[in-house]
Amino acid sequence: MNLQAYADQVMRRCDALAACTEEPGRITRRYGTPALAQANALVAGWMRAAGMAVRQDAIGNLIARYEAGQPGARALLLGSHLDSVIDAGRYDGPLGVLVALAAVERLAAAGRRLPFAIDLAAFADEEGVRYVPYLGSRALAGALDQALLDRRDGDGVSLADAIRAFGGDPARLAESRRRGDDLLGYCEVHIEQGPVLESLGLPVGVVTAIAAQSRVAVRFTGVAGHAGTVPADLRRDALCAAAEFVLAVESRARATPGLVATVGQISAQPGASNVIPGLVALSLDVRHQDDAACAEAVADLRARAEQIAAARGVQAGWQAAQPGGATACAPELVARLGQAIEALGYPLRQLTSGAGHDGVVLSALTPFAMLFVRCRGGVSHNPAESVEPADVAVAIDVLGRFLDLTAGE
Amino acid sequence: MNLQAYADQVMRRCDALAACTEEPGRITRRYGTPALAQANALVAGWMRAAGMAVRQDAIGNLIARYEAGQPGARALLLGSHLDSVIDAGRYDGPLGVLVALAAVERLAAAGRRLPFAIDLAAFADEEGVRYVPYLGSRALAGALDQALLDRRDGDGVSLADAIRAFGGDPARLAESRRRGDDLLGYCEVHIEQGPVLESLGLPVGVVTAIAAQSRVAVRFTGVAGHAGTVPADLRRDALCAAAEFVLAVESRARATPGLVATVGQISAQPGASNVIPGLVALSLDVRHQDDAACAEAVADLRARAEQIAAARGVQAGWQAAQPGGATACAPELVARLGQAIEALGYPLRQLTSGAGHDGVVLSALTPFAMLFVRCRGGVSHNPAESVEPADVAVAIDVLGRFLDLTAGE
Repeated sequence: MNLQAYADQVMRRCDALAACTEEPGRITRRYGTPALAQANALVAGWMRAAGMAVRQDAIGNLIARYEAGQPGARALLLGSHLDSVIDAGRYDGPLGVLVALAAVERLAAAGRRLPFAIDLAAFADEEGVRYVPYLGSRALAGALDQALLDRRDGDGVSLADAIRAFGGDPARLAESRRRGDDLLGYCEVHIEQGPVLESLGLPVGVVTAIAAQSRVAVRFTGVAGHAGTVPADLRRDALCAAAEFVLAVESRARATPGLVATVGQISAQPGASNVIPGLVALSLDVRHQDDAACAEAVADLRARAEQIAAARGVQAGWQAAQPGGATACAPELVARLGQAIEALGYPLRQLTSGAGHDGVVLSALTPFAMLFVRCRGGVSHNPAESVEPADVAVAIDVLGRFLDLTAGE
Repeated sequence: MNLQAYADQVMRRCDALAACTEEPGRITRRYGTPALAQANALVAGWMRAAGMAVRQDAIGNLIARYEAGQPGARALLLGSHLDSVIDAGRYDGPLGVLVALAAVERLAAAGRRLPFAIDLAAFADEEGVRYVPYLGSRALAGALDQALLDRRDGDGVSLADAIRAFGGDPARLAESRRRGDDLLGYCEVHIEQGPVLESLGLPVGVVTAIAAQSRVAVRFTGVAGHAGTVPADLRRDALCAAAEFVLAVESRARATPGLVATVGQISAQPGASNVIPGLVALSLDVRHQDDAACAEAVADLRARAEQIAAARGVQAGWQAAQPGGATACAPELVARLGQAIEALGYPLRQLTSGAGHDGVVLSALTPFAMLFVRCRGGVSHNPAESVEPADVAVAIDVLGRFLDLTAGE
């Protein structure tokens, strides 16, 4: 089977995984759902067919091993995630798992063993739609806070119950933990989810860092009242305050190169068409490749929320999640991926990732690097997500060359 | 028992009804719920104790009769509703039912019969939180569209099933219908839900009309995308468009005396903190005492939604519900309520109602009028809703005098 045939197989497998969904007609595959179990079953079958030993750990990650040429060798971790956002595209996550699998299949087809094992992880949660992001890699890194087990999803199901329903065991999560000294590093292939590679006409690029990211839960508390009877000039409408803030977020992002800021969730209480909103809760997500620029934008927006609230006689609440500083990729792995790209005749482009990835968590465990694959229009988290089979072939080839270089060949 | 004792009893009964709720700690009593059934049971008991014959009709309205002095007499309809909005106050609805009941109790205590019967209605749905407003009065007026029976609430329960669960029968709704020629009219006591009477220092006022009201379902459709990777200047964020529109609604209302306009509901899809909103749906509620001013504001806001959408490269959707024109109260009943107020020594103030009431529907059946009772700060649809026992006593007294005047005494 030639390189392009492996790429075409990856494309077909992405299509097959797209059919594993909670919602007919669109792709939604959250942690712990039957849709994700179906995806795990498909991928586990392909892994076994490649001669890998497959297990599902206590949180639900698939871990498949392609043994080294000699016993007792350390392992290189490859992988990505199989869960998705709501109404997702078909490549964010699955592409990285399947490109890595294709690289293993090429080794197996050639009867080759490397001086290290390959552990291919298909993480059960990266997006965090039901609970919090990175559940899968947190379990692997031993970084899953026990208090999270009581966290409930929108339907009131605790994470502990979701783990059980997914065939896992919340009491045995510690067994998922890997020891860093057994690992050579972690390398993930992922669609870029941005427009840079497309604008440069490049199929792949190497990630040097994952941008700093701040998430804040913002609340505006005004006074609810009857929509028909409280005069316009006497209102303290929480939604009007929130609307001003949403536009302030947009303006702040547009004013700073490289800054992105998003209000992705909003809810108004009590939430009836004939009642003035008394409480609005919204999410704020701010990212920049530079920690200081990210923090400065968040501080500015907090001040802006307070100004807006004060001018309107409402209250602003601000609950910042642990801010994630920028996470640097391991220079030696970045260099080796770049070497692989150039060895295959492609220009080398380094770029930062605006999106978070499992490497943010795994970097505490082992050195990590990422290979980005061009996607159409930079569109992601959207059914229009699209990649070219020819680019997928390049990614498989680059990852294969990266393995060779890691093996010292 | 003196007048103030009746008023104090009304206050205590409002407190007792406040404990009939779907949600511990706040008042929520939607149509067809066990909480409303509990309220109906309490009120039915008080009605029976007043010597009234009580029945619950097919949709769940309580109808209690205080017979006339002679057989075959027509009936005057009094009443209000027992359902509530979410996180409601304790007087919007119950106060009107209980003030009318107190007026009947005073007649009964005096052993008096009038030349007409009194039918006291405790409507099972006016707020329309689960389905559509005015279910109770629509059933009474024979104005309940059969197609509504298939309407589903947020949990997927059809109205037909909700009626059954509430002990009613969707097949027998026609039996709830009253004949207008049996009725002398409908008179409702209600809190003002606005600040006018308080600002004038008056306990009660007479309603001359219910304001024109338009409800619109507005949608903005942009492009969803990853919050970390789509640059700020390339976004087509549906929530930013919606935020501009919310502020346009606020500005338009402030620019026109007497106009109120409210966005009470908003939702963003896909609704994850790390995804740019691709679709935002919101409710628009516009009211003015003048039909033309209401319609002009709605037309302006529609144009504004389209401008905002065009400037941002997103789509605007606009689905207007049947607009409700202003509903005039019957001049003879308005005059008689005014006469009762002045006879008791209070200055007469007429006002329009910004809120809709069952009279909007019942006006097709029989002449109607309303007596408003002062409430603190004009606050309603809010747990802070508050009325003074002394004002409730005035309302009971005015309604009693109104009955006397109707009897020709």
